[in-house]
Amino acid sequence: MVWERWLEEDQPHEECGVFGIYYPGEDVARLSFFALYALQHRGQESAGIAVSDGKTAHIHKGMGLVAQVFTEENLHHLQGHLAIAHNRYSTTGSPTLRNAQPYLIETMLGPLGVAHNGNLVNAPLLRRDLLQRGVGLTSSSDSEIITLMLAGGVGDWITRIRTFMAQAVGAYSLTILTRSAVFGVRDPWGFRPLVIGRLNSEGWCIASESCALATIGAKFVREVEPGEIIRLDANGLHAETGAPPRKRALCTFEHIYFARPDSIFDGKVVHNVRQALGRQLAREAPADADIVIAVPDSGTPHAIGYAQESGLPFTEGLIKNRYIGRTFIQPSERLRREGVRLKYNPLPANLEGKRVVLVDDSIVRGTTSGPLIRLLREAGAVEVHVRVASPPITHSCFMGVDMARDQDLIAARLSVEEIRRHIGADTLAYISLEGMMKAIGADTGYCNACFTGDYPTGLDESFTKLEFEDAIV
Amino acid sequence: MVWERWLEEDQPHEECGVFGIYYPGEDVARLSFFALYALQHRGQESAGIAVSDGKTAHIHKGMGLVAQVFTEENLHHLQGHLAIAHNRYSTTGSPTLRNAQPYLIETMLGPLGVAHNGNLVNAPLLRRDLLQRGVGLTSSSDSEIITLMLAGGVGDWITRIRTFMAQAVGAYSLTILTRSAVFGVRDPWGFRPLVIGRLNSEGWCIASESCALATIGAKFVREVEPGEIIRLDANGLHAETGAPPRKRALCTFEHIYFARPDSIFDGKVVHNVRQALGRQLAREAPADADIVIAVPDSGTPHAIGYAQESGLPFTEGLIKNRYIGRTFIQPSERLRREGVRLKYNPLPANLEGKRVVLVDDSIVRGTTSGPLIRLLREAGAVEVHVRVASPPITHSCFMGVDMARDQDLIAARLSVEEIRRHIGADTLAYISLEGMMKAIGADTGYCNACFTGDYPTGLDESFTKLEFEDAIV
Amino acid sequence: MVWERWLEEDQPHEECGVFGIYYPGEDVARLSFFALYALQHRGQESAGIAVSDGKTAHIHKGMGLVAQVFTEENLHHLQGHLAIAHNRYSTTGSPTLRNAQPYLIETMLGPLGVAHNGNLVNAPLLRRDLLQRGVGLTSSSDSEIITLMLAGGVGDWITRIRTFMAQAVGAYSLTILTRSAVFGVRDPWGFRPLVIGRLNSEGWCIASESCALATIGAKFVREVEPGEIIRLDANGLHAETGAPPRKRALCTFEHIYFARPDSIFDGKVVHNVRQALGRQLAREAPADADIVIAVPDSGTPHAIGYAQESGLPFTEGLIKNRYIGRTFIQPSERLRREGVRLKYNPLPANLEGKRVVLVDDSIVRGTTSGPLIRLLREAGAVEVHVRVASPPITHSCFMGVDMARDQDLIAARLSVEEIRRHIGADTLAYISLEGMMKAIGADTGYCNACFTGDYPTGLDESFTKLEFEDAIV
Amino acid sequence: MVWERWLEEDQPHEECGVFGIYYPGEDVARLSFFALYALQHRGQESAGIAVSDGKTAHIHKGMGLVAQVFTEENLHHLQGHLAIAHNRYSTTGSPTLRNAQPYLIETMLGPLGVAHNGNLVNAPLLRRDLLQRGVGLTSSSDSEIITLMLAGGVGDWITRIRTFMAQAVGAYSLTILTRSAVFGVRDPWGFRPLVIGRLNSEGWCIASESCALATIGAKFVREVEPGEIIRLDANGLHAETGAPPRKRALCTFEHIYFARPDSIFDGKVVHNVRQALGRQLAREAPADADIVIAVPDSGTPHAIGYAQESGLPFTEGLIKNRYIGRTFIQPSERLRREGVRLKYNPLPANLEGKRVVLVDDSIVRGTTSGPLIRLLREAGAVEVHVRVASPPITHSCFMGVDMARDQDLIAARLSVEEIRRHIGADTLAYISLEGMMKAIGADTGYCNACFTGDYPTGLDESFTKLEFEDAIV
Repeated sequence: MVWERWLEEDQPHEECGVFGIYYPGEDVARLSFFALYALQHRGQESAGIAVSDGKTAHIHKGMGLVAQVFTEENLHHLQGHLAIAHNRYSTTGSPTLRNAQPYLIETMLGPLGVAHNGNLVNAPLLRRDLLQRGVGLTSSSDSEIITLMLAGGVGDWITRIRTFMAQAVGAYSLTILTRSAVFGVRDPWGFRPLVIGRLNSEGWCIASESCALATIGAKFVREVEPGEIIRLDANGLHAETGAPPRKRALCTFEHIYFARPDSIFDGKVVHNVRQALGRQLAREAPADADIVIAVPDSGTPHAIGYAQESGLPFTEGLIKNRYIGRTFIQPSERLRREGVRLKYNPLPANLEGKRVVLVDDSIVRGTTSGPLIRLLREAGAVEVHVRVASPPITHSCFMGVDMARDQDLIAARLSVEEIRRHIGADTLAYISLEGMMKAIGADTGYCNACFTGDYPTGLDESFTKLEFEDAIV
Repeated sequence: MVWERWLEEDQPHEECGVFGIYYPGEDVARLSFFALYALQHRGQESAGIAVSDGKTAHIHKGMGLVAQVFTEENLHHLQGHLAIAHNRYSTTGSPTLRNAQPYLIETMLGPLGVAHNGNLVNAPLLRRDLLQRGVGLTSSSDSEIITLMLAGGVGDWITRIRTFMAQAVGAYSLTILTRSAVFGVRDPWGFRPLVIGRLNSEGWCIASESCALATIGAKFVREVEPGEIIRLDANGLHAETGAPPRKRALCTFEHIYFARPDSIFDGKVVHNVRQALGRQLAREAPADADIVIAVPDSGTPHAIGYAQESGLPFTEGLIKNRYIGRTFIQPSERLRREGVRLKYNPLPANLEGKRVVLVDDSIVRGTTSGPLIRLLREAGAVEVHVRVASPPITHSCFMGVDMARDQDLIAARLSVEEIRRHIGADTLAYISLEGMMKAIGADTGYCNACFTGDYPTGLDESFTKLEFEDAIV
Repeated sequence: MVWERWLEEDQPHEECGVFGIYYPGEDVARLSFFALYALQHRGQESAGIAVSDGKTAHIHKGMGLVAQVFTEENLHHLQGHLAIAHNRYSTTGSPTLRNAQPYLIETMLGPLGVAHNGNLVNAPLLRRDLLQRGVGLTSSSDSEIITLMLAGGVGDWITRIRTFMAQAVGAYSLTILTRSAVFGVRDPWGFRPLVIGRLNSEGWCIASESCALATIGAKFVREVEPGEIIRLDANGLHAETGAPPRKRALCTFEHIYFARPDSIFDGKVVHNVRQALGRQLAREAPADADIVIAVPDSGTPHAIGYAQESGLPFTEGLIKNRYIGRTFIQPSERLRREGVRLKYNPLPANLEGKRVVLVDDSIVRGTTSGPLIRLLREAGAVEVHVRVASPPITHSCFMGVDMARDQDLIAARLSVEEIRRHIGADTLAYISLEGMMKAIGADTGYCNACFTGDYPTGLDESFTKLEFEDAIV
Repeated sequence: MVWERWLEEDQPHEECGVFGIYYPGEDVARLSFFALYALQHRGQESAGIAVSDGKTAHIHKGMGLVAQVFTEENLHHLQGHLAIAHNRYSTTGSPTLRNAQPYLIETMLGPLGVAHNGNLVNAPLLRRDLLQRGVGLTSSSDSEIITLMLAGGVGDWITRIRTFMAQAVGAYSLTILTRSAVFGVRDPWGFRPLVIGRLNSEGWCIASESCALATIGAKFVREVEPGEIIRLDANGLHAETGAPPRKRALCTFEHIYFARPDSIFDGKVVHNVRQALGRQLAREAPADADIVIAVPDSGTPHAIGYAQESGLPFTEGLIKNRYIGRTFIQPSERLRREGVRLKYNPLPANLEGKRVVLVDDSIVRGTTSGPLIRLLREAGAVEVHVRVASPPITHSCFMGVDMARDQDLIAARLSVEEIRRHIGADTLAYISLEGMMKAIGADTGYCNACFTGDYPTGLDESFTKLEFEDAIV
């Protein structure tokens, strides 16, 4: 067990970042590397890049951060002018190189590589279909399923992608590498983000988030539409509809927590949405207090918004260790009891005698909030008013976010008042669902299943996270 | 060359964090690990822990972050009840395991280990003395010099430490391990921080910064006085004067940039000093602007202070990639030209049409400021007013900070107005020396040599950083 | 390029060792490890073990020697009571972990693993069939083809194996892991060896060579017959015919060079066959000489046989560096010229003034023989009579031996007399084909294609070693 | 515990190989690499090379085989025209990089590096002297002691080496690197070998064994005399006496077991001495038998000599796994019982019904002999007559051979007849001390302390192998 993950358990986890590029005459593997670097926040477990030079495909992937996986030497072997790339945070399957992406195979139509962000709700069914067709599976990753479905299809790649989209239920933002084209595909609900960038007249790219475009000097063109297929090749960019439209169900949590604040999602800069959430929260749940502080770093934009709206001064009350990373060293029993101190330290001078509004972006398990509040009180805060910029999370996510199982979600078990008592806050308020949507600036079009239990895809397909592991590990 | 350091070149670099602990019945290596974890910001090049069980000493050190260097297995070999530990950022010498600390040897009085933060100005002289005595040196690290000077001394450890202090000129905050005691030593000028913590009736520790105490659950007792020797052993804590007092010369940059904001230095919480610097800066150099933003993350407290004093709203205008780490991948020529984007992205929505105050804690080489300002303008800022929370840096540091050589310091070559033009700011202002000291709350007692050229120790001893490397690499 | 392989280039290369075991109550992974250890001579590029506990399968594989790949920790994860294992020397495909074996997948019938020694002559055809069925391939290894063919078959495992055998042309000695049984399969020609061992009433195993049985304390039962399928499971050992008999074509080179001398192949101890080859060679090609020496170590048994028959004393004339291993260090031009000295040094005292018979097991490219003879002459040998215990090699092998391409085989280009002059021997003689078969004790039943060009399977299927690499690398 | 060493425990262990070279215009690090490669049999625990370019010294060392420690990249950093190199097998101290050699320091006279083969009997005394002088020690290796003694001396290097030789008691064959010269030093007893080679008019080298000269194309010049100092520099080779002559005490075991058979020791080719030992053994202890076999590979020359003299045919009866290497995998209890099978397998066809003479070079603990004899009997041998080409080993070695402690030496506890019964041989005979010396061709001049207890240096200095480890690990 990697103990350090205990520190992270009280946050939802994004699972993956994807990237694809077509750019003749450029070192596409190097550009892919820097794009992954910008998307590192979407997954730190493994990284991989697959390239094609129009004839042969090459791949390198490994466990760890992008900067650990790639060296000049292995990058040098990735020659070509089109590429896909992937950062993985495991949702399905245990951490192992076998589950690292992209997944790359040889097919009748040449090499085929897939990088996937999301989660197929009907993966067990699709897996069973493949096994029944006599196709074996080496891993528990959805991307292998998708790759093998495409390999076993008929017609050209676009046709096969359409066939896949007709069968797949769930979240998938894909980049696909073939011998001479890169494809970008977004599921008809649009759960996870996917954007298009332009490098020059011949160079195009596709990325999970627009922050990757800025990093490699690409111009943001637009977001890929739900249900859309994008093809990048010698003919430039080609877009077409891959699946009939479904009710849009963009993931609200990309706005609340996952996406990098400088990314654009659903036409809005994420940072602005977060400040708007904080302002809305201040309107809905004002507090009689002296200062506003954030749970750093993810709650900072929301707290700034709260401060702006409330007129209370924003300041820093908690310092986060910037070098928190995975360690295999177990804390002693005593250290574990006050484990939150390994990550956060309070600033007594800012807190002493103060009535504090503590703004958090979300509460998942509720295991961190209590210790944090105790920390603030020990540092002199006389009152702690917790304000949460998302509604209570009461249901697990099946579209690719590693949130927690229902029974581990504190708001699935306790009322707001019970949570308040549990974490020891003076007052506790969550933003309302309506308020949140208002701050986002949309009435509908988002998946709020984690707050409401209303799953856009339904839940007919039973989903068991590690099912495959029963057979091969 | 590790290219990623190019990104970091425009900041001064702290060199080391030290720790020492005496705590019978506890796993002192594990506590040392978590203390190093909290001090990681002071050095990321190598880490090491040496322990003694009262008879035998054991050591483990390695290149990289604390979490990379230590495993349960190697920690398990570090049995004992007293320990010292070290995080290194190289100032003297090239990066190699040979320079990793602590340095541990066998002597007539048993094992002797030294962990050092600082820089001995007269190291070449001390080195020559050792060589003339016929003592060979295996590394270019000051800690080997100190260890060998102590080993070659006469009398008990306290006497030897006094003898060393009488000869050494420069900055040294040390933790020393002997068979049955841990010592903490701070140079008579007090350049670098060093604090004392208490764990229980028998358990004591010494650390570079108080943030390490909080992390391992120790109570902050007080700072080690300049010139003081602290001994931790079976008799508890013993303190005595090791060298006659010198004019105090605490490093101002600990307040401005180095120390973790939650640490206490010279009796003040560093975060508060930073906010006060921002407020003083606002008083000295107001700006006719709409918003205040920081160069994240180090400039954030100063910017918040500036906003509070000026009444302008604080917001975020630049997003920093939180996963910036060393990479061996070189950016292509095109990416290099806009290299600042690999680290920072602007938030156009917050900047559009705005007159922006950009608060930075310091400007060293000035290579980042220009690109950042261009970034802000491209994102829509109509004016950019740069405010710097420290005076112009005109002189190199010889007390253990890797700032840059004189010729690389932009303020050593250009006037403020020339710098303003060079970086393309609408206005540029630095805090005054007097204003800075006022914000810190002290008239004297600090080393401001990097701003004034007035070196507290004088500069009689010629110092050449890599001199030793001429002989052995 | 790994230069060290230059030293090995003048020998044929065996490609793989396989092992399978069913042994309830025993640590089958550990036994597999020691079996691989005994089979290490058959492949040093990668090693792997897959186990099943009757429900779940686990696998570990890695690049390098068995002792480098496995640790107590990774062995500990391989819990189960049935296992297969593999040592690989690459014939098809470049060295990469992706080609390491066993290959393990999930199928409708549960986990399926395959370890393969040999080479499928019609692999391109079989690969095409799979691709046309829409099954993608991730590697260039035959074992993936076999696994996917079995996965895509119908009926129970025995039926599927039969179906595979009906389609496959070439050399294959396989061990196969399913959820609750281990299978051993040998192609109908019997190219490569495969033997059965018994551990106790419940425990059985299958191995490439009998030396592995001795090492783990198993009793040699018999060789697997060409075309036979062996099943090991809870019902003990079950044997049946899997394919109609073909003309037996056992690989003569197993006797000459590949197999460990203490192994049994075709009912004969290999070491005895080698001595018999030496004796036959002495009868066919006596030499007027003083001493008999070997090209160590592989030529030693043949040389001892030659000495026994000729009555000349056997002694050592060349010392081989026992630590020859792969190195990435290139010799300088001067060292390269006398590269043979890095591997062999002469013993002048034994050679001085002597007429020497130098016995080698085979000559492939002929690049080593010349330098060796010069070495002997410089050390004082007055005459060097080369005797080779196999006939001239004139044709490449397509059944799994990495011999060299036709154009690199010296005997494909030059006559015996030309070779003699080329290598600078006083006389040169090869054993006759008939003499070789007489020494082996068989008239027919062996594949001598490398000497005759008469390929048992025909050569209708074009075979290109790295073909797949064109598509994915 | 590395279990594999259990397999090696029944052999004495050589500790080190040293090399030194002066060769302007050549890549001396590369030549050192190949020299270490040839000396690999003298130590497999660690390897290192230190070079000087006349100004700066560089070093690289690491754990493992030479081919594992060095890469083109780290070799590339070792630029210069003079070098020393070292292979280590640990005798003093536990395996750790800290004890790897060469040991390199900076001194008043420039860089100083030492590579050492041997063992200083009075190391504890010398160590104490250093500690009393106030010089600390970082390791438990003798080479650090020697380096620090030279660094602390007075006068030029030759004078310091003489001073060292006047104080040191025990075995030392050294190569020493200074800024512009390489020295070779052999103790006045001449315990361990050391030879001189010539590369061209300017290029000279010094090596533990002549096999290294042949490998790098150097011409054997002569052996370094006991007590002699050799200096290689811009003036070519200079030789002088460093210490007054002592009674020569060359290590007999170099002839019996350690040296590579193609090396020259005391003017004789080692392989010839081994054959002569076998012949003498045959004369002293004939056997009524059918065949002669060796314990491979070290006993083979002795067995060939025995066969030649006795007229019995030499053949192979035991096959040794050529890939025996260190493994961390523990055999199960059952495998451990028959552990000898992991290393050796018998050849029943050669043994069946035969009366066998089994020739071994030596018996140390006697733990292997019994299992080997049982193996031979199970394989059909009707009689096993053990003949040992060295006398019974009754005393530990203090001159650098890791033999075993007295109590572990079987011949120190049991008579020859008791040993015969213990190992289950039909007859057992050792060569006589006189016969051994006769075969070597010398009356005196050798150290036979392990057979006689007559230590050439006396044993006044108490020697405790891991003493230093009590203080630092």
